[in-house]
Amino acid sequence: MKADGVDALLISDNANLYYLTGRVFAGYVYLPADGMPIYFVRRPVKMEGDGVVEIRKPEQMAETIGLNLPEKLGLELDVTAWSTVKRLSNVFPASEIANASTIMRKARAVKTDVEIDKIRISGVKQTRVYSLIPSLYNEGMTDIELQVEIERASRMEGCLGQFRVSGDSMELYMANLLVGDNADIPTPYDFAMGGEGMDPSLPVGCNGSLIRPGNTVMADVNGNYTGYMTDMTRTFRLGAISDLAVKAHKCSIDICHRLAKEGKPGTEAKRLYEIAQEMVNEAGLHEYFMGHKQKAGFIGHGVGIEINELPVIAPRSHDILQENNVIALEPKFVIPHVGAVGIENTYRVTASGLESLTLAPEEIIDLI
Amino acid sequence: MKADGVDALLISDNANLYYLTGRVFAGYVYLPADGMPIYFVRRPVKMEGDGVVEIRKPEQMAETIGLNLPEKLGLELDVTAWSTVKRLSNVFPASEIANASTIMRKARAVKTDVEIDKIRISGVKQTRVYSLIPSLYNEGMTDIELQVEIERASRMEGCLGQFRVSGDSMELYMANLLVGDNADIPTPYDFAMGGEGMDPSLPVGCNGSLIRPGNTVMADVNGNYTGYMTDMTRTFRLGAISDLAVKAHKCSIDICHRLAKEGKPGTEAKRLYEIAQEMVNEAGLHEYFMGHKQKAGFIGHGVGIEINELPVIAPRSHDILQENNVIALEPKFVIPHVGAVGIENTYRVTASGLESLTLAPEEIIDLI
Repeated sequence: MKADGVDALLISDNANLYYLTGRVFAGYVYLPADGMPIYFVRRPVKMEGDGVVEIRKPEQMAETIGLNLPEKLGLELDVTAWSTVKRLSNVFPASEIANASTIMRKARAVKTDVEIDKIRISGVKQTRVYSLIPSLYNEGMTDIELQVEIERASRMEGCLGQFRVSGDSMELYMANLLVGDNADIPTPYDFAMGGEGMDPSLPVGCNGSLIRPGNTVMADVNGNYTGYMTDMTRTFRLGAISDLAVKAHKCSIDICHRLAKEGKPGTEAKRLYEIAQEMVNEAGLHEYFMGHKQKAGFIGHGVGIEINELPVIAPRSHDILQENNVIALEPKFVIPHVGAVGIENTYRVTASGLESLTLAPEEIIDLI
Repeated sequence: MKADGVDALLISDNANLYYLTGRVFAGYVYLPADGMPIYFVRRPVKMEGDGVVEIRKPEQMAETIGLNLPEKLGLELDVTAWSTVKRLSNVFPASEIANASTIMRKARAVKTDVEIDKIRISGVKQTRVYSLIPSLYNEGMTDIELQVEIERASRMEGCLGQFRVSGDSMELYMANLLVGDNADIPTPYDFAMGGEGMDPSLPVGCNGSLIRPGNTVMADVNGNYTGYMTDMTRTFRLGAISDLAVKAHKCSIDICHRLAKEGKPGTEAKRLYEIAQEMVNEAGLHEYFMGHKQKAGFIGHGVGIEINELPVIAPRSHDILQENNVIALEPKFVIPHVGAVGIENTYRVTASGLESLTLAPEEIIDLI
C-alpha cells in the first residue's frame, strides 16, 4: 500500500472482503496503512468482532474515522459502479482517489498457506467428482442431462455452487460441458471455450446435443468447495475418436507437463504462452488451438476466490510468476465433428516448478 | 429518452443487452434517440444481424458513429465500473454523460406482451417443480440434501440456473431453502430472508440443518426458465407445527390476497406495504414479520430479467404501480424454533388487480 502511495483502502467487493476477513458482509473494510482496520457493517446486524462498527449508510464512516482522514484513499475502481464511487468520494471530499483494485489484485495473486490449503481441499473434492463422471453417463443422454447429474454429484460432495468472476460481464452456471460440434460455437464470454448454451440469455455451454459415438465430452466444472476454487478440465469420449483428436489431446498433456517444468518464480507468463504456441505449431495443430471458429487469447489464468485472477498467461502479459501464485493452464483444442479435447489443471508455483492440485487422470477417459 | 434530454444511450450490461436485443453478447448497443441502433460486437465473432459492427475495443466506436456524436450520452452509471465509465467517456470526449441506468430501469419495469409470455412460461415450469418437492423429500434429510434434489428437478425442467441480480453485491446459488432456526440467522444480503449458509464465503441459505418434526421448510427456488424469471416461495412442514406458525402463514396468504385486489395501475407501492403492515399489526405478528433477529425493509419487488427490478414495495418507495409491471410479493415471517412461514407470488399488474403467475397451492404443504 505504501509503495503505491496510498494512506488507506476502502474495500467493499465481496471477493476482496472475503480475502481480508474470511467472510462476506455488506459494508466496508477501512484499511489504513498505519493503524488498525475498521469493519463498517451494514448487514448482518450485530456482527461480532474487534473493530466492527455498525452503519446504515456510507456517510457515517467519516465520523468514526475522525480527524485522521486519508490524503490518498484507494477505492476498487475496476469493480465498483461509477455511482457508488461518486457517493464514496463525497464521503471523503478531501481525499485524492487511487485505484485499490490494482493493489488488491496483486496482493491476492500470491496465496498464503491458508489459502493454498483451501485450494488443495477443493482440488481433492473436485477430483473425486470427476472420477464419478463415467458412472453418471447413461446411453442416449444429452449434454445437459449429463451436466445436471455432474452438478448434483458436485453439490453432494460439497461444491458451494457460487462461481465468482471479477467484473459482471462473465456468466456461467456451474459448468461448461461441451459435446461434439457445440464446442465450435463462439460465445460472447471470455472463457477459453464456448458453446451455444440452452437459451440466448446465457449463450455458453450445453445446447441440448445428444452425445454420439465419435464425440468428445469436455467437462470444465465449478471447483469452488471452500470459497477458493480449483479449475480442472478433463475430456471424455463415447467410442473411438479421430486420430487428429487423439493427437491434439496428447499435445495438450505434453504442453501442461512441459510448462510445469518451466513455470518457476521469475518466469515470464508470456514465455509459457510462447512455449505452448511453439509446441502447437510443431505439431501442426495451430488451426484448432484455443478454439477453431473463435479463439481465446490466453492459455491460463490465476485462480483463487475468483476464476480470473493474476497472473494472466497470454502473449502480451507483463506478469512474472511468483512463488505461491496459483494458476490454471488450459491448452485446449476444438476438432470439427469430434469436439473439444485437452486438459486443464490448477497449479501452485514452487521453486522447482508447478505443482498440480488437480490430480484426476489426464488421458481421454471412456464414458462406457 | 427524449424526456430525459439524452441524445443516445450506450448499453453494455448483460441484462440490458438481453432486454434490447434478445441475446447477450460482449459489446455495446448504441441507441440514438433519432436513427437506427448500432450493435458494436466484440464477441462472439461474426455475429449476424442488421446494424452489427465488429470491434476489438471501445475506442473504435466513435469512428463508426462519425460526425453525429451525441451531446448528451447515457451510460449505465449504476452498474458499470468506474474505470470502464472513465474509458467510455474518453471515447466521447465532447459528450456530457447522463445516467442510462435510471432510464433502462424505468423502461424495463413495464413489461411487453412478449416478456410477460416468457415470465408466464417460467411460472408454469416453476410451479411444476414445486409440486414435486414432497416426493423429493426422504426421512432424515438435511436442508442441503433436499435443496440439491430440488436443484436437479429444476434443471431437468429447464431452469437455466443463472440468477441475475442488479449490482454485484448480492449472491445466491439456485435457491434459498430455510429449515427451522436457520431462518433466523441474519445474512449480509438484501434478500427478504437469511440463513447461515454452508460456508462464510456465501453466508445465505442452507447450513446443513436436519429437517426435524415441528420444523418448516421454506423453499424460494430460482425461477429463471426463459431469461425472464418468476419468484415464488412455498412453505412445507414435517409433522405438526405451532399454532403461531400456522396463524402467521395464514396472515401471509391473506396479505397476498388483499394486495392482489388493491394493486392496480396508479396504486402507490408504499400503500401496499402499509396495508400489509396494518394487517400484521392487527394480527399481533409484528415481531416476526419479514424476519425476527434481522428484518428486511421491503415486502416486494419488480422481477423480470433480474430479481431486483422496479417497482420496490417498501415504506419509502416513490414508485407508482403501472399496468404490466410484474412484481413479486413476499410477506414472510420467521417463527423461533419453527422456521420461516409465508408465501411469495409473482403478479402482473392489470386494470382489475394483480394476476398471479405462480399458481402452486398456497397452504402449508406436508412433506410426508
